[in-house]
Formats: sequence, structure tokens, C-alpha cells
Amino acid sequence: MAKIAALSGFPEWLPAERQVEQHVIDVFREVAELHGFSGIETRAVEPLDQLLRKGEIDKEVYLLRRLQASEEEDPAADASRTLGLHFDLTVPLARYVLEHQNDLAFPFRRFQIQKVWRGERPQDGRFREFYQADLDVIGQDVLPSHVESEVAIVMAEILSRLPLPAFSIHVNTRKLSEGFFRSLGFEDHTAVLRSLDKLPKIGEDAVRTLLVDEAGATAEQADAALAFAGIRSRDASFGDRVRALGGTGEMVEEGIAELTAVLERVEAAVPGVILADLSIARGLDYYTGTVFESFVEGHESLGSVCSGGRYDRLAEDNRHSYPGVGLSIGLSRLVSRLLSADLARPSRPVPTCVLVAVSDEASRGASETVARTLRGRGVPCEVAPTAAKLGKQIRYADRRGIPFVWFPGADGAEDEVKDIRTGEQASASAGSWQVPEEDRTVRILPASEAARPRS
Amino acid sequence: MAKIAALSGFPEWLPAERQVEQHVIDVFREVAELHGFSGIETRAVEPLDQLLRKGEIDKEVYLLRRLQASEEEDPAADASRTLGLHFDLTVPLARYVLEHQNDLAFPFRRFQIQKVWRGERPQDGRFREFYQADLDVIGQDVLPSHVESEVAIVMAEILSRLPLPAFSIHVNTRKLSEGFFRSLGFEDHTAVLRSLDKLPKIGEDAVRTLLVDEAGATAEQADAALAFAGIRSRDASFGDRVRALGGTGEMVEEGIAELTAVLERVEAAVPGVILADLSIARGLDYYTGTVFESFVEGHESLGSVCSGGRYDRLAEDNRHSYPGVGLSIGLSRLVSRLLSADLARPSRPVPTCVLVAVSDEASRGASETVARTLRGRGVPCEVAPTAAKLGKQIRYADRRGIPFVWFPGADGAEDEVKDIRTGEQASASAGSWQVPEEDRTVRILPASEAARPRS
Repeated sequence: MAKIAALSGFPEWLPAERQVEQHVIDVFREVAELHGFSGIETRAVEPLDQLLRKGEIDKEVYLLRRLQASEEEDPAADASRTLGLHFDLTVPLARYVLEHQNDLAFPFRRFQIQKVWRGERPQDGRFREFYQADLDVIGQDVLPSHVESEVAIVMAEILSRLPLPAFSIHVNTRKLSEGFFRSLGFEDHTAVLRSLDKLPKIGEDAVRTLLVDEAGATAEQADAALAFAGIRSRDASFGDRVRALGGTGEMVEEGIAELTAVLERVEAAVPGVILADLSIARGLDYYTGTVFESFVEGHESLGSVCSGGRYDRLAEDNRHSYPGVGLSIGLSRLVSRLLSADLARPSRPVPTCVLVAVSDEASRGASETVARTLRGRGVPCEVAPTAAKLGKQIRYADRRGIPFVWFPGADGAEDEVKDIRTGEQASASAGSWQVPEEDRTVRILPASEAARPRS
Repeated sequence: MAKIAALSGFPEWLPAERQVEQHVIDVFREVAELHGFSGIETRAVEPLDQLLRKGEIDKEVYLLRRLQASEEEDPAADASRTLGLHFDLTVPLARYVLEHQNDLAFPFRRFQIQKVWRGERPQDGRFREFYQADLDVIGQDVLPSHVESEVAIVMAEILSRLPLPAFSIHVNTRKLSEGFFRSLGFEDHTAVLRSLDKLPKIGEDAVRTLLVDEAGATAEQADAALAFAGIRSRDASFGDRVRALGGTGEMVEEGIAELTAVLERVEAAVPGVILADLSIARGLDYYTGTVFESFVEGHESLGSVCSGGRYDRLAEDNRHSYPGVGLSIGLSRLVSRLLSADLARPSRPVPTCVLVAVSDEASRGASETVARTLRGRGVPCEVAPTAAKLGKQIRYADRRGIPFVWFPGADGAEDEVKDIRTGEQASASAGSWQVPEEDRTVRILPASEAARPRS
């Protein structure tokens, strides 16, 4: 017999765990739709030349080849005909927008929750197959800057509805960083950003050396750049600190004004989560305006759980350019942590709320009628698989985590329903029984208590 | 610039079309959960040797290969290490059940809605990437026969909630067919089934020839087999017709009893859709008990939209065997027809119910507050992207199909809301406005009217 084994890097959840993942997907979708975003899906494959457009990620791509393909079909031969699995949802979005530009209304508000694949070596928390959840607003030629705070608000709402400990959204804007480094006299501000980007990994001293050696900074400039990157502020006060470090000029003032507007708008919508963090740089060649990262308290090792920002060139053709603002959640990575750190668990492992008992096979039809009535009222039900002794049927429900067992009354007697958690049993009628609302469907609970039994 | 083009066989929907697909997925999930089925997902890839276990479908598999894989990694070299994309959800289920048997409670009730891939040449309605929606009950060693009608009931409930014309579920059981052909004196009853399976494609005369030439039938036996396959009945009367054609013996009588029980149970649960159809054979080597197919009136060319049945050997190892009963919907194929035949359309193309107008950028914050209040009450909202003239903002809403435009009152004046379909405008407060329930979220409507504009 073939060996059955898990594949490293391809996570799979047990049914109870999948409920947590489904909940995160549902929350993302619900919040996105409340903000008027349309859900789309794109095909899993793109032509290889599209996937390699950015040029940096070539070793991560999985190519496809039909098992029965003829020898001549060398997958590497024709990059426009060779198909690979998408490694993110941005490349497909760019292609989708260009392909369907005449059928879309701009600004195009879309969300997309799909699996992506990367052929990298699996490591702690790095998967080869994982869900990504993206949300973007794409303009045609123009996109107003207030969209940047709008996307941060959506991000804050999604995170605040997930079973997470306290989180914070760190925001910066390219304009402020670039303006500041220019006003300090740096010629190559991207070299400065590139050095600062390494702060979390290599620390302040090593970055100071980099700034001097690679960005051509004086010791004084390096100190100012590091002081700038150290600024954190929940209100507009960051502006004065930037000015005190020597930040001057139109670009700096515009950056301060933009960042202040984002802070104020997000604070008004979802209080207490946004802060200016001038160390945030991310995706240097990609983002062109406001940038966001978000961190969960006590789980900083996860890195940013939800990131985004403005990019002015998602796509373009001879007629139009398509600027965008987007956010992205590495959903599988987040779910994996929710599960492994016991941050969330379903109120029960199965959807079933009521097990309808069967006293003998001849009366199975009566039990099915009860179940049908309850389902018609929105109560998830199963009928017991066998007419075993009632004690055995109760144990069956208990083992699956089903909270109620229903006993149809024989010979005109009333039905009874038992809450097997409390042992309480009462007369009931399927057409009028009031199920406690917290038991009707599965809820996902923050599970701060001691570790639950995994299984 | 790289060419942007659709890929044949990889369907993609516009946002409004995706709403129809999402609706079908939501209905499937809702009904499955009401019946106590747990949703799972499996990884998209399986080892090639697992995919080829059934031996018949090898030319349909897409193999994966990392772009940067070294030359030695010949994808065909080691079938247990080579990965391919799954082409159905049954092979992954069998592997999942074996891998996780110690963590699952049996009978295991699971549903699974995922994309699958087949490298075949795309044809009318045949895709290379498509959604499949499966639902199965898997037993450990044993599985009671009443599960067969239970699954047919779930099938009937799903189909009855979809925006379809009248449909019917055709049911048969292997026991009845096999028993009948044995009692006619056929030695090789699978040869008979294989011939009869071709009825829809090649017709009665050609099948009669096959029965004589390949199944060794006499002219009389062939006529009886064809008469048997012609039996259709909504009640138990099919039994007498089988007996009149010469069906006798224990196996025939057991088959009649089982099929009658399925008819009665499904009829009690969802009246008017089930019928016995003794021509149904499907998956000869796979199914071992009751088999189902379902057809939509006026769309018989689609073939069966939802099929299933009992199979006694989904998986097995040294300790256990895993019999199952399942159903499967070729979801993309069905959605494709819903769209192309204009059977269903969303009540509006975007999730947004209300566009909150912005009279000038300085008051954008007030518009955002209105939107936040409405969202808090479950009303999907967008704020106008620019403070254009109000007529232009109304046209923006109209172009996107947003039914309401909200005008925040300036200087203490009351807010007003306009239904742009009727032109009606009235005072309103975001905290108490009663949105018509049919407008709050998008609904999917049967669209029997004339063809809608496809946009």
C-alpha cells in the first residue's frame, strides 16, 4: 500500500481546526462586503512570463506540466505558454484588471481569498501552500489619497473582529521618509530605507554601520536616521519630533499632514489601534505612499499579520495606468498561530447542535421528521446512525461534542430534549423549542484558558 | 508588454458573476452544516502514485515542478515524491481519512468545496480548473444503508434551494440491477451494465447489438434488459414491473425493498423530485449500492448536475475498511450554465447598498461617520470617492447598481436618503433608517426574464 503521510509545507486542518480558518475567512468577507468590496477569484495559474515580471521570485514558482505532455513541450521553452501556480494575488489582480478593464467600474473595490503556492523550502510558519486574503481599491489613472486611510480602517475592523489579543497598526508614508532623508542631505534615500528595513533583524549598531558604509552617511546623519526610525506616536506629535531632527521642506510637511490625516481617520473609526511608526518601510520598489504593518501583542515573532499600502503602478497599458491601495493577510500563517497558541477554538467541533435519537429502526422516520422540523428552523441536526441503547447514543453525541440529544416521544408521549452538558432534560416540541442562541451554530471563542485537547 | 489573455479551460468570473458562484457555494455549505456535516479542505497536491491509484486517468494529471529544480529531479522518476494537482476530491478524502483516522469520529460527515484540475483538452463545459463540491458520510468498517437516502435528501435540499428550473433525482441500486441480470441468466452482469451505460450516447438499437455481441445475450434477454433499463417510477410500482420482466430471487427482492425505502424517505423530506430510474448505473467499478444522478429540466444536455451513491471501499488499511456514501456537484459547470442561460443573477452587481455622498472634502469625515453607523447596523456602504457634483455622485451609484444615495445634512439639517431607482427621497437618520430587507444584502434571483446585459 502507498505510504500515507503529511507533506511538509502543505498544512491541513482537522474539522474543528478548519472551523477557525473558515471563521477568519468569513470575518474578512463580511467586513469587506460591508465596505462595498466585491469578492473575486482568479484562476490558480498564470503564464510564467507574467509571474516573473517582477524578476525576483523565480525560484519560488511551481510550474505545471501535463503528465502525458509530449517530450517537445519543454516547460521552460516558452514562458508565455508555460503555466505556473500564482505565488500571490497581486500579479493575478494586475492581469485581471487589464484583461477586464472595460467591464469593471473604477475605483474597483475587490477582495480575494485564495490559496497561493511557493516552492520554497518549508520553515517555521512558512508554507508551500497557503491562503492569502487581499483587499484593494484600484483606480483608473487617478486614486484619491483618502483611500489610504479607508483601507487602514478596513484592516482595523477585520483584526478587531478576529479572536486576537491586542493588536496595533503601524503606519508610515514614503513621502515623509523620503523627504526627511533628502532634507538630511542623503542623495540615495532608497539606500537609507534599505538599511533601516533591516533594523528588526540586525539591530541598531549594525544598521548604523550599514548607513555609513553603504548609504554614505556621516555619523551624525546616521544617528538622525536612526532617531527618525525610532519615532512612534499615537497622535500628531510625531511631526514636531521629525522637525526637531532636522526634517524640513515641502515633502516633509506634506508627509506629516498625510500621516496625521490617516492617524485621525483611523482613530475615529476604530479607536486605540493605529500609531505612526517611522521605521516602517516595506516593499521599497513597490509602495509609493502610505504603508501599513500590524502586529499582535505577544506574537511579534509572527511578523506583520496584515500589511498594505499605496502603489501607483499596479498595472498599465497604452491607455491607462492603475494605481492602487491594498492590504493583505497571510491567512494560513495567522490561523496556524491561532491554533498552535490556543488563541481560538470553536464552541464545538462539529456543526451539529442536536442529535435526534432513534429508539428502533422502525421509528427512524419519526426521528427524521423531528430533524427536518428543527433544520427548517435553522437548527443543525443529525439523526443517530444506529438505534443503539440510548446511553450509547448519548455517548455518541458527547464524543462528537453535540450539546443536545432529542428523544422523540413514543406512542403519543411528548418529545424530550436533554442538554448533555448539564444533564437537564425537559419536554419539548420540534416546532417551538427555543434553542439557546449561543448554541444554535458554532461560534469561535478566544481560548485564553489552558491548552485544549488537540484532536 | 506581455500579452493579456484569457486561458482556455480556466474560467474566471466578473464580480457580479462571482456572486452567483459564491451563492451556490454558500447554499451547499448551509445545507451541509444544517445536516451536521463538517467542512474540510485538503491540500491541492497529492503524490503522483496516489493520484494514479485508480489507473485510468493518468493523462489528466498536472504535475508540479519547481522552476529552479535541479536537472536530476525528473518529475516522472519517483511517483511517490512527484506531486500532482488533485483531479477530484475523492482521492484526497481517502488519503485524509487514512491519515487522520485516529482524530476523526466515525461515521465521519464531511463536505468539501475546492477547485480541482484536469489537464484535458477544454471543450464545451469542460474546464481544466473547476470547483467541485462533495459531501460524504464515511463509516469505519460499517455504514448503515439508511445513510444512502440521507445523502439523497441532502442533495434534494441543496438543489431545491438553488435558482434552478424543476429538477429530478434519478435513483437505482446496484443490487437490483445485478440481481435482475443474474435472474435473467447473464453470467457477466457488469458487461450488461457497461452496455446499458451507453444508452444515452448510442441509443437502444446499438445497445441491443452490444448486449448480444459483448454480453452474450439472446435476443430475448437483450429485450428484457432494455425493458428493465426503461423503467421509471415515482412510487413502489417499479417492483412489479421488474418481477413481470422475470426478475426473481432474494437479491432482486432486497433491491426492490431498498430502492422503495429510498423513494419513500426522500419523498417524505422533499416531495416531488425523486424517481426510480433503472437505467442509472454510473461508476461500475466504484459504486456498490444505491446510485443517484440528477437532471435539470430543459438542461438535460448538462448531464447529471449532482451525482452520488454508495461505495464500500473508499479506503482501507491493515486494520480498517472505510465504506462511504457521497454526492458530488460539478459546481463550476453548473454555475457556468446558470450564467450563460441567464438562470440566475444578483439583485445588484456590487455588495454596496448605500453610497454616502460627500459635499466637499472638508466634510468627508461626517460622511464616513454616517457610513460607519450604517455598517454597524449591517448595511454595506461606500463613501463617494470624490466630492464631485451631486448629480455626478448619483450617476456613480447608478453605474455601479448601488440602490441608495445618502446625503448628510449640512449645518444641522437632517440627512436625506434617495432611492435612485424610484427617485424617492426622504429624511433619515443613520441610526434608525429602516433599509428594505430585500435591499440590505445582495440576493441571487432566478432570472427567467429576457437576457440581462452581460457587463
